[in-house]
Amino acid sequence: MQNFEFHNPTKIIFGNETIGRLAELVPSDARVLILYGGNSARKNGTLDEVRSALGSRFMQEFGGIEPNPSYETLMQAVEYIRTEKLDYLLAVGGGSVIDGTKFVAAAVNFSGDAWNILLNHGRNIDSALPFGTVLTLPATGSEMNCGSVVTRRETHTKLAFMNTHVFPQFSILDPAKTYTLPTRQIANGVIDAFVHITEQYLTYPVGGMVQDRFAEGLLQTLVEIGPKALATPEDADARANLMWTATLALNGLIGAGVPHDWATHMIGHELTAAYNIDHARTLAIVLPALLHEQRNQKHDKLLQYGQRVWGINSGSEDARITATIEATRDFFERMGTPTRLSDYDLGNEAIDLVIKQLEAHGMTQLGEHGDVTPEVSRRILTTAI
Amino acid sequence: MQNFEFHNPTKIIFGNETIGRLAELVPSDARVLILYGGNSARKNGTLDEVRSALGSRFMQEFGGIEPNPSYETLMQAVEYIRTEKLDYLLAVGGGSVIDGTKFVAAAVNFSGDAWNILLNHGRNIDSALPFGTVLTLPATGSEMNCGSVVTRRETHTKLAFMNTHVFPQFSILDPAKTYTLPTRQIANGVIDAFVHITEQYLTYPVGGMVQDRFAEGLLQTLVEIGPKALATPEDADARANLMWTATLALNGLIGAGVPHDWATHMIGHELTAAYNIDHARTLAIVLPALLHEQRNQKHDKLLQYGQRVWGINSGSEDARITATIEATRDFFERMGTPTRLSDYDLGNEAIDLVIKQLEAHGMTQLGEHGDVTPEVSRRILTTAI
Repeated sequence: MQNFEFHNPTKIIFGNETIGRLAELVPSDARVLILYGGNSARKNGTLDEVRSALGSRFMQEFGGIEPNPSYETLMQAVEYIRTEKLDYLLAVGGGSVIDGTKFVAAAVNFSGDAWNILLNHGRNIDSALPFGTVLTLPATGSEMNCGSVVTRRETHTKLAFMNTHVFPQFSILDPAKTYTLPTRQIANGVIDAFVHITEQYLTYPVGGMVQDRFAEGLLQTLVEIGPKALATPEDADARANLMWTATLALNGLIGAGVPHDWATHMIGHELTAAYNIDHARTLAIVLPALLHEQRNQKHDKLLQYGQRVWGINSGSEDARITATIEATRDFFERMGTPTRLSDYDLGNEAIDLVIKQLEAHGMTQLGEHGDVTPEVSRRILTTAI
Repeated sequence: MQNFEFHNPTKIIFGNETIGRLAELVPSDARVLILYGGNSARKNGTLDEVRSALGSRFMQEFGGIEPNPSYETLMQAVEYIRTEKLDYLLAVGGGSVIDGTKFVAAAVNFSGDAWNILLNHGRNIDSALPFGTVLTLPATGSEMNCGSVVTRRETHTKLAFMNTHVFPQFSILDPAKTYTLPTRQIANGVIDAFVHITEQYLTYPVGGMVQDRFAEGLLQTLVEIGPKALATPEDADARANLMWTATLALNGLIGAGVPHDWATHMIGHELTAAYNIDHARTLAIVLPALLHEQRNQKHDKLLQYGQRVWGINSGSEDARITATIEATRDFFERMGTPTRLSDYDLGNEAIDLVIKQLEAHGMTQLGEHGDVTPEVSRRILTTAI
């Protein structure tokens, strides 16, 4: 096992009928801005519940944070907070709203051009407004980590930042709030969580036995509940386990002390920035192709993953690895998510653009070995056609 | 899944050669008291390393905290801290030293008789001195939770308390510090962690799929590494995984949203208080007997545990449950730990005393259903002869 540091101070409030807990979680003298995305939070009554629980602490709301939240929109929130002298943020939504809120929290106090936060990947943050979250969409894990991804629409640039100042103080996870989500968002959530896990698990063995077992347990859970969560929106157990699994997939725990990959995410980000494909769908395109391409580097872990998660025990090692990768692809397809670039009407031109953007963003040594060069990324994307 | 709250703010620093990190973890103006147990921390050089890293922050040390730390000894530390105006504690040792430090941290500021902290199980704590830990013995998980158990020698009373004020600010986990531990302490650590897990897992199903998978992953890890950790002290992977497993066994994660048992611990505590048997050894005596006695109440989880952890898939349900319980007992025995009261020269007289003490301490409705009455505890102990 590698040396590691693990620290996660976010308080999780999990379960049905828990939004009322806001009354005790938010300081009584806070001047709160609620940040949210589209109109679903309003229509399904969550915004009303939140406002009611906040009482006189509720000052203003800021809607319209997009999927893949944009720098341009978020800077409007920053100006608004400065003008109105608000001092506490509450994100109500999924990963995009929470990621956006993290950026806003850090940017309000930032001196100089806030875009520098992203160019420096957050290393230059030294304070942030306190904030909490009410999660309505299980997927990204943003509700219990200190990472965020923001897109500058103007330049199609999607960049990530991390800083311990942007851990949510608390996150309320009410699985019943997911019952009304569209099927495609549930599928996206399952796949996003799935690939967060594989990015921290499918690398090379370092003797992190607990991390491996936890990663496999989360993957097994997703395999078991994914189809149920799609088929039966009000399956309380499926939705509760999906919500908690997605949180644990990226709260730092399974990634502590083991190598990480993240090449699938980095390549996927460029597909989203260029073609506005849902984040999770880009992962479903890239991961199977990347596993084929990196089957030698990931040999031992692919065999272990196949055996423990998919029960693939027979055949040559090569055949087992192929079967394991195809089982993964098949799972994504069963979640209603196409896994080929051509399914999205993309081909060689798109590959040229993505490679150019990866190079422009310095993404030239991806993967756990740093050996996913632009040339390798091109092979991966070609395999993905 | 049941509703739950999960919050664990302790920072973990894990790995070899990490004690030097104390220099940045402890505030530069702290006046530090080091608390430790016997002379092993001094002999193996850990105390010297700690003092060197603390530099001028090191003020005093307080040794002699016993296994099953005593109220009487800890109150001496409390007086000492008040006299010397120390303001930061550093526990160097295993669970007993850390548990003791938690009590000291809470008692220093407590007005009135500090024994009331234990009588109230910690609900009356409203502040505590800040403290960190350097863990040298993997077992109890105390390094990443806010619970503690203290014994009043005078009355043979062993009581537990919990309060969020006594989370360690940080814990340093260096697996190499465990290489010199006696075999019996390693065996105790493995069994203590094992039973912490079963107390949160072997109850009844509530659809906590992730919690189950995590509990099973930790148990599988202990089954795999326990014998190696005994046989080969310097097996770095075995010791590192043992240390991290024992921490995760009782940091709140696997117990969030599921029922708990703890009857084995409560009955075991009385055996330790009355006969000074190692804590883990009492658990190895009580658990197999308790599982036999509660096989109907725990039916579904025992089958799942047998299948997933021990690979017991064939035979009647009853036969599988019996085989599962005996596999558990056999594991404890392979760890060099006798599992029968008679192995410790105890019989019916001891049972009479333990039942009397359970009644005196209000432990009359134990277990996840509250159905482990003194009569049931007597049957369990009789089975354990």
